[in-house]
Amino acid sequence: MGKNRLEAFSDGVLAIIITIMVLEMKVPHEPTLAAIGSVLPVFLSYVLSFIYLGIYWNNHHHMLHLVSRVNGTVLWSNLHLLFWLSLLPFTTGWMGENHFAAATLFLYGINLLCCAIAYFILQQGIIKLQGAGSILAHAVGRDIKGKISPVLYLLGIGASFVSQWASGAFYVAAACMWLIPDRRIEHEVAQHIPQ
Amino acid sequence: MGKNRLEAFSDGVLAIIITIMVLEMKVPHEPTLAAIGSVLPVFLSYVLSFIYLGIYWNNHHHMLHLVSRVNGTVLWSNLHLLFWLSLLPFTTGWMGENHFAAATLFLYGINLLCCAIAYFILQQGIIKLQGAGSILAHAVGRDIKGKISPVLYLLGIGASFVSQWASGAFYVAAACMWLIPDRRIEHEVAQHIPQ
Amino acid sequence: MGKNRLEAFSDGVLAIIITIMVLEMKVPHEPTLAAIGSVLPVFLSYVLSFIYLGIYWNNHHHMLHLVSRVNGTVLWSNLHLLFWLSLLPFTTGWMGENHFAAATLFLYGINLLCCAIAYFILQQGIIKLQGAGSILAHAVGRDIKGKISPVLYLLGIGASFVSQWASGAFYVAAACMWLIPDRRIEHEVAQHIPQ
Amino acid sequence: MGKNRLEAFSDGVLAIIITIMVLEMKVPHEPTLAAIGSVLPVFLSYVLSFIYLGIYWNNHHHMLHLVSRVNGTVLWSNLHLLFWLSLLPFTTGWMGENHFAAATLFLYGINLLCCAIAYFILQQGIIKLQGAGSILAHAVGRDIKGKISPVLYLLGIGASFVSQWASGAFYVAAACMWLIPDRRIEHEVAQHIPQ
Repeated sequence: MGKNRLEAFSDGVLAIIITIMVLEMKVPHEPTLAAIGSVLPVFLSYVLSFIYLGIYWNNHHHMLHLVSRVNGTVLWSNLHLLFWLSLLPFTTGWMGENHFAAATLFLYGINLLCCAIAYFILQQGIIKLQGAGSILAHAVGRDIKGKISPVLYLLGIGASFVSQWASGAFYVAAACMWLIPDRRIEHEVAQHIPQ
Repeated sequence: MGKNRLEAFSDGVLAIIITIMVLEMKVPHEPTLAAIGSVLPVFLSYVLSFIYLGIYWNNHHHMLHLVSRVNGTVLWSNLHLLFWLSLLPFTTGWMGENHFAAATLFLYGINLLCCAIAYFILQQGIIKLQGAGSILAHAVGRDIKGKISPVLYLLGIGASFVSQWASGAFYVAAACMWLIPDRRIEHEVAQHIPQ
Repeated sequence: MGKNRLEAFSDGVLAIIITIMVLEMKVPHEPTLAAIGSVLPVFLSYVLSFIYLGIYWNNHHHMLHLVSRVNGTVLWSNLHLLFWLSLLPFTTGWMGENHFAAATLFLYGINLLCCAIAYFILQQGIIKLQGAGSILAHAVGRDIKGKISPVLYLLGIGASFVSQWASGAFYVAAACMWLIPDRRIEHEVAQHIPQ
Repeated sequence: MGKNRLEAFSDGVLAIIITIMVLEMKVPHEPTLAAIGSVLPVFLSYVLSFIYLGIYWNNHHHMLHLVSRVNGTVLWSNLHLLFWLSLLPFTTGWMGENHFAAATLFLYGINLLCCAIAYFILQQGIIKLQGAGSILAHAVGRDIKGKISPVLYLLGIGASFVSQWASGAFYVAAACMWLIPDRRIEHEVAQHIPQ
């Protein structure tokens, strides 16, 4: 089965998720710059989640570049990933509206962790489908980033009820780590895939 | 007439439906885990409908794989299916917000039944267009799942004013039945369609 | 310039318009079938606009099938059409929420009329670009439906403050007329375009 | 890496942004034409932003026509542009709801300026990737429009607390300037790219 509709559907869902998040930013009723200032926490949480969704879209894009066919397991693993990503506007909005309160940082971290696990399951499903000599397995290699980020999410979750600053810092750190593009896969693509 | 735009449009609509459902989950105003607990019924109804929409997308994907051209009847049968699917966020939100009250389970079942009927009409329209020796007709075969699921929806509708648990169980059972991927069509694709 | 992105963008916008209309249907707070009954006018207005958007998508699909390249004028004529279509959720919601009050029928008709004019402008832009021997000009022919429907919209607009039933009937009649698929263009496609 | 998914994702996000803006137009509760009149400022702000988003989609479309491959920097520059564009529904809604108050014109101009800067960064990223003899660099040439428009935005921002009419006029003027299609790139496409 081809991967085109999988890509198209995923792009559609990711485009909608990333865009409807902005709907969580309620337009203030007063036309003053002070009123805009009160939206700042929501805006910051929006920026963070926008970057996370950008990272997922980017990595998803790279990963599917190394895939030529999909099966039912991969389709459902992909939907499973999209499910957790689709909850990000909710957890982001809750976190921003409540000025990064402990419980909201806790839930946001849980959401990020579930996304990471779902991404890992999808990656393993593709590698299993590709079998021995999987291009993706080779490209992913030891997957250091993929192993560090859940640890950072867990640290953020653990820190949420202790120090909100520390908790937020772990989530920002994980995003920064991923912003560095995944040269491994870009490298593999350059070697294995005719453009 | 080609099927590409039909697929693209359907993917777009399904991606939007599946994503805007999350907008029905209103962000609670208190930053406590207890407040999140109150969203749980809405969350559970969202999970169920997400799975149903995933099933429809999956089956739609498989079915159109066996289609090479479409006509006006197929275009409108497809829009008819999308219409009933687009009502799912409404019936899902109503059901979740009212903690699976009898009337909401009743309406949700009606909605699922209409989706199933619309899917059946679309399938028949494609088979009729393909004529004798239709690949889809061969792949669908006796369509046992397609015959069992409306019965389950009817049982769920009938049970809704008697036992909410039983009603919900029928809807969950139908979803579980479909989650097992449609090997028949995957099998046909492997045999008949050059990848 | 190719037409692919034009089609993709139009499909995206139409898919979103058709889907977000359902967001205008506010979930009632009481879990009773009577509460659902109160949503009926909104539901009926939604059905009508869903059919209109389906008609536009269908005709747009057929028309672009006869187009091989586009220019800046066509791109902007297309955006102009999408603009008026994007207002349909607003005018539909207003009409449904106010039980088809005179002013809402008036505005709905204006919106339909603007969509029809914008579609005509787009069609003329494509015909002009194709030049003498335009396939689209040949397919559209005398464009009887395209000439009758604005008359029906005008009648509906004129009747809105006199009889709400008559006004609504004109809008329903125009939709019914279009539901009959555009055989002219399907015919041309079958003759001129290799599938 | 191919540009197809970049185009598809950008089209999706732009289609959603342009469409959800209409959700900012709240349906008035009274069924009178006077009630509709009160929506007029929101409507006008919506028209202006619709045109801006159309311009961006159009220019983006033209620009990517001259691109054959993308890298990580281009992907992220594109997401950066989409980020600022995704804020337009928010700033537009705030401006319309508050009848073009000074602070709202100020913020709207800031948003337009950020979009322009992000577009410039994306353009430079592509030119850098294409290297010496870049088709895009040649097509863009001295980029007079791209240099005038930020000046107009800055004038609009500066004028916002002095004269709301002048401020709005600068934003309208910049949009009008861009509405004239970008013949330079169309010209290059006609010369360099096989259709």
